[in-house]
Amino acid sequence: MADVVFKIDPKKHMADQEVPGHNRWHPDIPAVVTVKPGDEVRVECKEWTDGQIGNNDSANDVRDADLSVCHMLSGPIAVQGAEPGDVLVVDILNIGPMPGTETEWGYTGIFARNNGGCFLTEYFPDAYKAVWKFSGVYASSRHIPDVRFEGISHPGLIGTAPSKELLAKWNAREAELIATNPDRVPPLAYPPYPQTALLGTLKQGDYQRVAAEGARTVPPREHGGNCDIKNLSRGSRIYFPVYVKGGNLSLGDLHFSQGDGEITFCGAIEMGGWVDLRLDVIKHGVSKYKLVNPIFRPGHLNPQYSNFLVFEGISVDDQGKQHYLDTTLAYKNACMNCIAYLKECGYTGEQAYLLLGAAPVEGRVSGVVDIPNACCTVYLPAEIFERTIEPFSTSVSKKSQAAAAK
Amino acid sequence: MADVVFKIDPKKHMADQEVPGHNRWHPDIPAVVTVKPGDEVRVECKEWTDGQIGNNDSANDVRDADLSVCHMLSGPIAVQGAEPGDVLVVDILNIGPMPGTETEWGYTGIFARNNGGCFLTEYFPDAYKAVWKFSGVYASSRHIPDVRFEGISHPGLIGTAPSKELLAKWNAREAELIATNPDRVPPLAYPPYPQTALLGTLKQGDYQRVAAEGARTVPPREHGGNCDIKNLSRGSRIYFPVYVKGGNLSLGDLHFSQGDGEITFCGAIEMGGWVDLRLDVIKHGVSKYKLVNPIFRPGHLNPQYSNFLVFEGISVDDQGKQHYLDTTLAYKNACMNCIAYLKECGYTGEQAYLLLGAAPVEGRVSGVVDIPNACCTVYLPAEIFERTIEPFSTSVSKKSQAAAAK
Amino acid sequence: MADVVFKIDPKKHMADQEVPGHNRWHPDIPAVVTVKPGDEVRVECKEWTDGQIGNNDSANDVRDADLSVCHMLSGPIAVQGAEPGDVLVVDILNIGPMPGTETEWGYTGIFARNNGGCFLTEYFPDAYKAVWKFSGVYASSRHIPDVRFEGISHPGLIGTAPSKELLAKWNAREAELIATNPDRVPPLAYPPYPQTALLGTLKQGDYQRVAAEGARTVPPREHGGNCDIKNLSRGSRIYFPVYVKGGNLSLGDLHFSQGDGEITFCGAIEMGGWVDLRLDVIKHGVSKYKLVNPIFRPGHLNPQYSNFLVFEGISVDDQGKQHYLDTTLAYKNACMNCIAYLKECGYTGEQAYLLLGAAPVEGRVSGVVDIPNACCTVYLPAEIFERTIEPFSTSVSKKSQAAAAK
Amino acid sequence: MADVVFKIDPKKHMADQEVPGHNRWHPDIPAVVTVKPGDEVRVECKEWTDGQIGNNDSANDVRDADLSVCHMLSGPIAVQGAEPGDVLVVDILNIGPMPGTETEWGYTGIFARNNGGCFLTEYFPDAYKAVWKFSGVYASSRHIPDVRFEGISHPGLIGTAPSKELLAKWNAREAELIATNPDRVPPLAYPPYPQTALLGTLKQGDYQRVAAEGARTVPPREHGGNCDIKNLSRGSRIYFPVYVKGGNLSLGDLHFSQGDGEITFCGAIEMGGWVDLRLDVIKHGVSKYKLVNPIFRPGHLNPQYSNFLVFEGISVDDQGKQHYLDTTLAYKNACMNCIAYLKECGYTGEQAYLLLGAAPVEGRVSGVVDIPNACCTVYLPAEIFERTIEPFSTSVSKKSQAAAAK
Repeated sequence: MADVVFKIDPKKHMADQEVPGHNRWHPDIPAVVTVKPGDEVRVECKEWTDGQIGNNDSANDVRDADLSVCHMLSGPIAVQGAEPGDVLVVDILNIGPMPGTETEWGYTGIFARNNGGCFLTEYFPDAYKAVWKFSGVYASSRHIPDVRFEGISHPGLIGTAPSKELLAKWNAREAELIATNPDRVPPLAYPPYPQTALLGTLKQGDYQRVAAEGARTVPPREHGGNCDIKNLSRGSRIYFPVYVKGGNLSLGDLHFSQGDGEITFCGAIEMGGWVDLRLDVIKHGVSKYKLVNPIFRPGHLNPQYSNFLVFEGISVDDQGKQHYLDTTLAYKNACMNCIAYLKECGYTGEQAYLLLGAAPVEGRVSGVVDIPNACCTVYLPAEIFERTIEPFSTSVSKKSQAAAAK
Repeated sequence: MADVVFKIDPKKHMADQEVPGHNRWHPDIPAVVTVKPGDEVRVECKEWTDGQIGNNDSANDVRDADLSVCHMLSGPIAVQGAEPGDVLVVDILNIGPMPGTETEWGYTGIFARNNGGCFLTEYFPDAYKAVWKFSGVYASSRHIPDVRFEGISHPGLIGTAPSKELLAKWNAREAELIATNPDRVPPLAYPPYPQTALLGTLKQGDYQRVAAEGARTVPPREHGGNCDIKNLSRGSRIYFPVYVKGGNLSLGDLHFSQGDGEITFCGAIEMGGWVDLRLDVIKHGVSKYKLVNPIFRPGHLNPQYSNFLVFEGISVDDQGKQHYLDTTLAYKNACMNCIAYLKECGYTGEQAYLLLGAAPVEGRVSGVVDIPNACCTVYLPAEIFERTIEPFSTSVSKKSQAAAAK
Repeated sequence: MADVVFKIDPKKHMADQEVPGHNRWHPDIPAVVTVKPGDEVRVECKEWTDGQIGNNDSANDVRDADLSVCHMLSGPIAVQGAEPGDVLVVDILNIGPMPGTETEWGYTGIFARNNGGCFLTEYFPDAYKAVWKFSGVYASSRHIPDVRFEGISHPGLIGTAPSKELLAKWNAREAELIATNPDRVPPLAYPPYPQTALLGTLKQGDYQRVAAEGARTVPPREHGGNCDIKNLSRGSRIYFPVYVKGGNLSLGDLHFSQGDGEITFCGAIEMGGWVDLRLDVIKHGVSKYKLVNPIFRPGHLNPQYSNFLVFEGISVDDQGKQHYLDTTLAYKNACMNCIAYLKECGYTGEQAYLLLGAAPVEGRVSGVVDIPNACCTVYLPAEIFERTIEPFSTSVSKKSQAAAAK
Repeated sequence: MADVVFKIDPKKHMADQEVPGHNRWHPDIPAVVTVKPGDEVRVECKEWTDGQIGNNDSANDVRDADLSVCHMLSGPIAVQGAEPGDVLVVDILNIGPMPGTETEWGYTGIFARNNGGCFLTEYFPDAYKAVWKFSGVYASSRHIPDVRFEGISHPGLIGTAPSKELLAKWNAREAELIATNPDRVPPLAYPPYPQTALLGTLKQGDYQRVAAEGARTVPPREHGGNCDIKNLSRGSRIYFPVYVKGGNLSLGDLHFSQGDGEITFCGAIEMGGWVDLRLDVIKHGVSKYKLVNPIFRPGHLNPQYSNFLVFEGISVDDQGKQHYLDTTLAYKNACMNCIAYLKECGYTGEQAYLLLGAAPVEGRVSGVVDIPNACCTVYLPAEIFERTIEPFSTSVSKKSQAAAAK
């Protein structure tokens, strides 16, 4: 077992851990440990909300969750010799939930329109929740019947620390966007929010300044961050740009499983747990590989399905209005078409929506040049269902007479 | 071999075929043949531009192509008993280029900004072309070295005829969009254009009216149409909504291969060829399956790769401006990041761009809820290259001493 | 389309083709064509029995087939510059049945114990047959209901010509085996049989000698030959040892599909058809790669399934007698266990047996060291069935109350 | 985490555990726990030799290992309500090594001819060993350079307890085989051997009798047992015949990874560890599914490779003698051909042999009807190597001039 370089007591809040983590991005948050290139380490992580959501049958906790404390990150981890312009090579060696009956569960939440919102918030404005039980590699939920699948576990959030300049760029461009519609519900973006900033082991003197500057963790950015890419799973190798000495990698928001898009906002199956990493450095890799965002190589262990039902969507909205190559809208429609189908199979809309966020569903950008319609597709693996959900043709072969020729 | 229900002489224009096809969508274009449920038929197709592009080393033909004649469609094919509200079940039994040394090639084109444009038109404003040679299931190009891959052939365009009402809706919503910026280059959408309309076997009396109303074939719509979904390949089964008696299926725009998004506009490897189909009907299927757009089940023969290099993109534009969950922009950036990487591997930007459009590249909607950034990913299969394109870590194991323990 | 270097008129016998093929291996059979390294060519092939089996509902033709004329091979094809010790690199670019309604079918036969026999001949001593219809990439049979699958087409037989020395070695070792039980039914091996030898374009003077020496085509040998490896399908690259000047490649015994082992003897779906090849040479490759038998790289287009039912078998015979690490027996038992299961699903034993030979079933050597039992496994893809064939547990979840938490 | 129903202290011998396991099969070995249908449980297991092999650079421990104590099994576990004729449904929910730096390693051993032997013992008569380090899902070895792969972990040995009658049959048939050559080295099979029998919690009175009757654990048999099927990995569901009340499932011989055939005898990567299981019962399932040996459904998480180099072998021995459809010999030759190739790549024969036993290599029964030669194939995934091992053609495309057409 790799050495635990970041330790979590699941019963305590992140702020109360022996070495606390952080929930903002800032170059001045001190590394909690420095490792050598080639080292393999274990990092334990809290669930992204710091334990606000319970294993119960009410979604009130999702409805009332304080999102300003999210995401709880473990780290930063510095790597010896890593300097700006280098590439930090991170192997996801393994990942799992915190062992124990009280921790081996997760949840998927539909966040309400007035508290975070979600991808289909206009159709699903209220908070809902499904609790998932983990049975080894399998997940199943008492809230969504007849479904069982092998998780494609991954850290939803993993990234290197930004430089001062990069951080300033983030805050500026996001502030500019917010300013276009500051009262929007849900908001266009989240500005720094010092009130609930948690800044690891940062000492008191700098705290106010860093809390006021620290970027929120919700969006993915150049450094990786909250990409929510389900394929960053076991066996993957990720190449991150380094912006500060040591690289200062942090991670959290572990998902037992997720569908492409993570469409219910916390659409993945959220969990606390651990990740085993191997860390390495490629000197001057950023210019060598023209790295703007991370690149990665998926492992060979991702769940493999061969029997899909696929739903298409185009960029016309539900008022019949035509939008121009709007891939987001096309993906929304593909999801809504899938949900409509699943409702015919006996699921409620909320169950179907939660399922699309949590199961290993693939979302594809199929066509983006055929003006004015983008075309997206959602791949639903039929094998995650314990019953048949597929349509069949009406012309059935006459079988009674069939026999091998003798 | 299935009966040929639509025949093409590749040396003749579509208008001059014994039974001509069409290049507009309209319920009044007469079916050229009626088949029975369960029938298997072969449909021959012209290349989408009706032969404007040549097997040569100049992209002038792409630059000067008349897009108003596109796409050349074979059909409509009516199925006995199909009525509005039914589902037309179409199996893609097989597909291939027209046999013969003069026809077994294809091309990928970057369309110039002022003639169609393309997904990355701001970075690639000029016309370029790569010609591909087909060697059985493989494609390779004298214009892009060291690449060879098995095609995932499919009809880029396949759909049922719209009803009068649906057609009116299409024209209205697209006209409304065009009106927001009628002089844009490239345009926001293409309105009906009677001058170059080809309407199959429609008789003279109705021709003017139908030509004036007929919807252009560029965008995908509710009926399927120009979806450019690379996975509608051999062995797939598609479920189409039926809007008119007989269903009236038409198809064309055959692709030897394509990457998700078909990003260079004719990003696929375009070819003339044939498709074998099986046609069937599910009565009242539209309401039974809540069909808005087609749904489909992919076959089991799609090229299978396990060694990918994946590039991420987020919705910040190249001026550094933040956009709100703009999946189209995120996909653009993922593509640009991949192209930058391939340039480091010795390709020109145009070669890399053409390759992304043509090879079996996967485009994923990875995250669409982490405001304000959407996150898209492009999966480049390393095995399509005949040389190594992957980065390697700096810490190489010392091998000289290794031996099995005795 | 590649140039046709070996042409077949399907209505004529192999001996009556313009350029006849051959049904024996011998270095003195003249090459019918010489191609250059890098050339792509089409080779047309007769079905392996030269047309003895009909598209009908009686297996009498299988029962009475003259196996001494098998297999009908197209070739030899010489490659310029190939010399003994070189490696002949053969790409299987594509493959298909002869086009036309009279030729687009195939069959699977259980050969009777007293005419060829088969893998499970003690359980299935009589001749049976299933005729398969080809619908593009799909096969289905009026003799085996509820089954439809995408074929993994390949040449069952492909190999280079043996040298004089290698041929002598083959004949000697097989004669020695036959001598241990010369009257066995079915025989242990087939000796040369000049009566029905067909020797291509060989001139009269040498005919008697070569016919008397020519090796039968039934077994696979060092040169490849009748390997019946289902994965030598579209997109594969094979490396053959060269034993004579030019390499002299011949092929035939085309299969639309096959299960591992080809267990009913002509267990594959036999067809006449065509193969597109690319030919190349690696000088001195045999010693460089220590080639004894061919090696190959499969393509990326093989049918992909993810839902298997797997049957185990061990090396104890049906009299209860223990055999020592007998993998052949273990595989027999795995097949018999699968057949027994399929009989419970409503198939006759013969239907199940024919299906195992024809469908893309995988046969694995799972354990071969656990004395005294070898363990083999047969992987049956559930998705080839158009109905459910899987067992389900008795403990079904109670679903009626399930709902997402609100 | 599932309840631990069988607990192991890795530092103690199996006999000294709080509840000891067993190393023989016998119906009278008492169940250590009874669970309910649907229960999920964790079973901890010792490494198969009970700790005789060390993490060091000498193979003397393999050479001198006492095989009569193998395999150390955890169990039996009884399931309420299971009775003879029922089917025990076992889900492999997850599996892993015992956590901790002292336990997260494994080894592959070539057993010497005079102590167990192995599949290729005539070529590799001496003991060798490779120690593997586990890095999350990856294994690598200081004894085999440039190799790293994701393990396909599984219990090599898992089975239900035999009835008295079945046990008698086993002992009788194996004794009969041994009697044909009782002095063979290595032996044909292992008879009961009371001296080192470990019988769980069996009380003293019956011990002598049961020790004298208890079947050795080496071979797989009707009940499953030591099948060494690498695909019984995470997510698999296995259907076992029940022969005694409760079923009495036992398991052990955990493998971090294995190649088909487990050819070096302990060819897998052997480890101690834990397995999470779900247990269920199908009443009267044996007759319903005609179960003779277990059947199973693999999970969706097996390592997926698409780039294989495949080696063929036929049933001619290295003296040139022809054998009749000897699949075991054909598989041996395929393995030897692969080893010869890997030696050209710089590995020693022993390293290559150890690698074939340990890596996720596929072994296929390709042809078993083409008398007299069986044909087997070994699929080596190229992606487990950190360098290129593939041959390339001599005709390289001229690249310098290539450019996209403009």
